[in-house]
Amino acid sequence: MTGSAEIICVGTELLLGDILNSNAQYLAQQLTQLGISHHYQTVVGDNPQRLAKAIAIACERSRLIIFTGGLGPTPDDITTATIANFFGVPLVENADVLADIKAKFAQRDRTMSNNNRKQALLPAGAAVLKNPQGTAPGILWQPRPGLHLMTFPGVPRELHTMWKTSAIPYLQEQGWSSGIIHSLTLKFWGASESSLATKVDAFLKLENPTVAPYASNGVIKLRISAKADTLESAKQLIAPIATQLKYIGGIDCFGEDNDTLGDAVGRLLLKHQATLAVAESCTGGGLGEMITAVPGSSAYFMGGIISYDNTVKERLLGVAASDLAKSGAVSAIVAEQMAAGVRTQLATDWGLSITGIAGPGGGSTIKPIGLVYIGLANDSETHHIECRFGHRNDRDWIRLMSRNTALDILRRTLLSNT
Amino acid sequence: MTGSAEIICVGTELLLGDILNSNAQYLAQQLTQLGISHHYQTVVGDNPQRLAKAIAIACERSRLIIFTGGLGPTPDDITTATIANFFGVPLVENADVLADIKAKFAQRDRTMSNNNRKQALLPAGAAVLKNPQGTAPGILWQPRPGLHLMTFPGVPRELHTMWKTSAIPYLQEQGWSSGIIHSLTLKFWGASESSLATKVDAFLKLENPTVAPYASNGVIKLRISAKADTLESAKQLIAPIATQLKYIGGIDCFGEDNDTLGDAVGRLLLKHQATLAVAESCTGGGLGEMITAVPGSSAYFMGGIISYDNTVKERLLGVAASDLAKSGAVSAIVAEQMAAGVRTQLATDWGLSITGIAGPGGGSTIKPIGLVYIGLANDSETHHIECRFGHRNDRDWIRLMSRNTALDILRRTLLSNT
Repeated sequence: MTGSAEIICVGTELLLGDILNSNAQYLAQQLTQLGISHHYQTVVGDNPQRLAKAIAIACERSRLIIFTGGLGPTPDDITTATIANFFGVPLVENADVLADIKAKFAQRDRTMSNNNRKQALLPAGAAVLKNPQGTAPGILWQPRPGLHLMTFPGVPRELHTMWKTSAIPYLQEQGWSSGIIHSLTLKFWGASESSLATKVDAFLKLENPTVAPYASNGVIKLRISAKADTLESAKQLIAPIATQLKYIGGIDCFGEDNDTLGDAVGRLLLKHQATLAVAESCTGGGLGEMITAVPGSSAYFMGGIISYDNTVKERLLGVAASDLAKSGAVSAIVAEQMAAGVRTQLATDWGLSITGIAGPGGGSTIKPIGLVYIGLANDSETHHIECRFGHRNDRDWIRLMSRNTALDILRRTLLSNT
Repeated sequence: MTGSAEIICVGTELLLGDILNSNAQYLAQQLTQLGISHHYQTVVGDNPQRLAKAIAIACERSRLIIFTGGLGPTPDDITTATIANFFGVPLVENADVLADIKAKFAQRDRTMSNNNRKQALLPAGAAVLKNPQGTAPGILWQPRPGLHLMTFPGVPRELHTMWKTSAIPYLQEQGWSSGIIHSLTLKFWGASESSLATKVDAFLKLENPTVAPYASNGVIKLRISAKADTLESAKQLIAPIATQLKYIGGIDCFGEDNDTLGDAVGRLLLKHQATLAVAESCTGGGLGEMITAVPGSSAYFMGGIISYDNTVKERLLGVAASDLAKSGAVSAIVAEQMAAGVRTQLATDWGLSITGIAGPGGGSTIKPIGLVYIGLANDSETHHIECRFGHRNDRDWIRLMSRNTALDILRRTLLSNT
C-alpha cells in the first residue's frame, strides 16, 4: 500500500485555542517512526458540514486519513456520523461495543446513560478499533478501495494506547509501514547550538541516518534518525554516527534520549559511591527537586538546606556574618561557604550551592539580575563559578539555568576525578 | 469586513512531529479574544506545490488567511515566494527591510549573509509587517478584494510581538474585530471537576458570558468569557458571574488567571505578617521551588530543610530516632516532627512538611506508593493530613500533588485563622 497519510483533528476547543494540539504531534511522530509520509494536518470544529468538506479534500489527496476527537457521547461529538454520512453508509449498532460500554459502566457501579448508546453506532462494514481505557471505540475502515480511515478519541492517553495496540499492527499488516524509522538523541550542555552545529556540520548533510540539531531550555540535542527494515538494522546504522558525535561533543555530551543532567550526575555519584547535599538560595529547592526527580536518588542524595534568608545561611550553613555584610549574599565567598557548610552539616562527600539574583527585584549595576554564584566543595577543596544568566531578564530562566549549570559543574568535576 | 479566518502553519518539522504546534493555539486564542471566528487550521510542509494547494483551498472558504513559518533565509523557507507566485505577483526587494536586516546584523557585529537578502523580497503591493525582534518581516496584503493575508515567522516570541504590535491594530482598523472577547479564569483546589461542574451546572448553560470547566495537574478551572464592544463592558458582564461562582466554590477557590497556590499562600502570609519554613522528604525541594517561584517570596519564606535521608531528619529536624524506627519515615508522627522541627530551626511562624512514598520503589501493602503525610506546625499546635495519590502510580504526579496539597492545607489554615 502506498500513498500519504493525513491527520484530521476534530474539536471546537482546538479552534478556540483552549487546548494545545498534542495529538497531532503524537501522530506525526508515530507516522514518522513507521516511515509513513504525511503531507497535511487539518483542524476543524464540531460542525458536520465543515468536517464533511475536510473529508472531501482529504480523500482527494491522501490514502490514509486519521481522525482524532468527536467520538464522545454528547451531541457535539459528530465524527462517526459525519464519516458514515459522507460515504453514504448507515450507522449500525454494534452489539459487542454496546456490551463493552455497559460493562465499563458496571465496573464503576454506574448505569450507562442513553447518551452513551450512541458510541456503539458504527458505519456498516467498519471494523472496531478497541479502546481498552474508555467508552469511545474507534473504527478501522476502507470505505473505498485504497482509502483507509481510522478514528480515535481526543483523550491523549486513550489515543496512545489504541495507536500502539491496534493501529500499528493494522498498518503493518496492510503494508503501510514497510520499514521503521528509529531515532537516538544525544544531549549536550555547555556548547551553544550554533557552535555544536558548526563542529558537526558534515553530519548534518547525511541522508540515512540523518542528524538534526535542536535546543530547548539550554539543552542542545542532536537527533540521529535511521530508516531501515528492522529496529536492529536502524540501530546498526545509528551506532557509529553516535560514537563519532559523542567524540566530537566530548565532555559536553551528558546523555541520551530522556536523560537529564540529574540522571547524569546520579550515575556518576553511584559510580564513585559518593554522596551529595545541596544549599540553595535563589533556586529555592529547585536543584534538590531536579536531583530527586530521578528514581533511586536516595542512594546518593542526602538532602539539603534552602537558605533563602541570610539568617539561615548563617545559622544552618555557617556562612560568616562578616562576609555576608562585606561581600553580600550573592558573592563567591558566600557560595563557597554555603557549599562547604552543607557538606559538613549533612556529612556528605560533596556540597553544591547556588546563590544569585533571580529578579525581578534585587538587581544593581554592580550585581545585576542574573548574576549567580555556584559553589562546590569536597573534602580537599572548595571552589566557585560566576555565571550571568540575565540577558532575558526572566526569573524562571535564571532559576532553570542556575540549577542545570550547578549540576553540570558537578558532572564535569566528577568526570575529571575518575 | 466579515467572513472567517484560517490558520496555515508551514513547516516540515510539524509534519515530522519535532515540535508542538503552539503557534496554532496562540493564534486561535487571539482570534477568539478578538471575536473573529476561524473554522480551519492547516499544517503543510516546506513544499511549494502542497502549500499552493493549501492556499487555493483556503481562498475558497476563508477571507483572512494567517500564515506562520517559512519566512527564514534558507532554501526551505518558501512561504513568501509561494504566496506571490500563487497570486501571480512578482517579488520585489524592499529597501527599508533590507536596511533593517543589515542594521540588525551590524548590531551583533556580524555581516549580513547573502541568504538573508532573500528576506527583503516581498510580493509587489504587500505592506511590511515589522518584526522588531528578528530579521524575518511578515506581510499584510490584500491580493484580491475581500481577501486578507498575513504572514508571521514560526518563532513564537517574534510571532507574539508582531501580532500584538501590528496585527491587532490592523484587524481592528480593517473592521475585522468589532468587539472583543475577554476571559477571567477562576482556579480551585480540593473539588473534583465533576463535583464543581455539578454545583455550577446552571452557569454552564449561559451564553454571554459563557462558563466552561477545565482541569490540569489537579487544578480545576472555570473560565468565564464575555463578548462585548469594549474591555470595560466585557469586565462588567463577567464581574457578577465571578462573584457568584466564587461564592459557590467557597474556600476551594484559590485564585484567578495565572495565580498558583504559591501565590495564594504568599498573599495570606504577607497579610498575616507571618513567616514560613518547609521540611521536605519525597518532594526533594519542589515545595520550596513552588513557593520561591513567586517574586518577592523572600518577604515571608525563610527557607527549608530537604531531609531526604533519615539521618537529616534526625540531626537537622530533631525527629526522634525511636519514632523513625517504630513508625517509619512515612508516618504521621514523623511529618509532625518535621514540621515542628523546621519551624524551630528556622525560627518561623509556620513549619510545613512532606514525607511520602513517590515510587517507583519503596511501596508495601501497608504503606503503598502514593501514601503521603503532610505536617503543619505553628506556635500553638501541630497536626497532619494523610493523603493517597498512588492511583496513577506516577512519581511526578505524586510529587506534584504532594506539594500542591501541602500549600493548600496551609492556605485553608491561614484563611480560617483570619
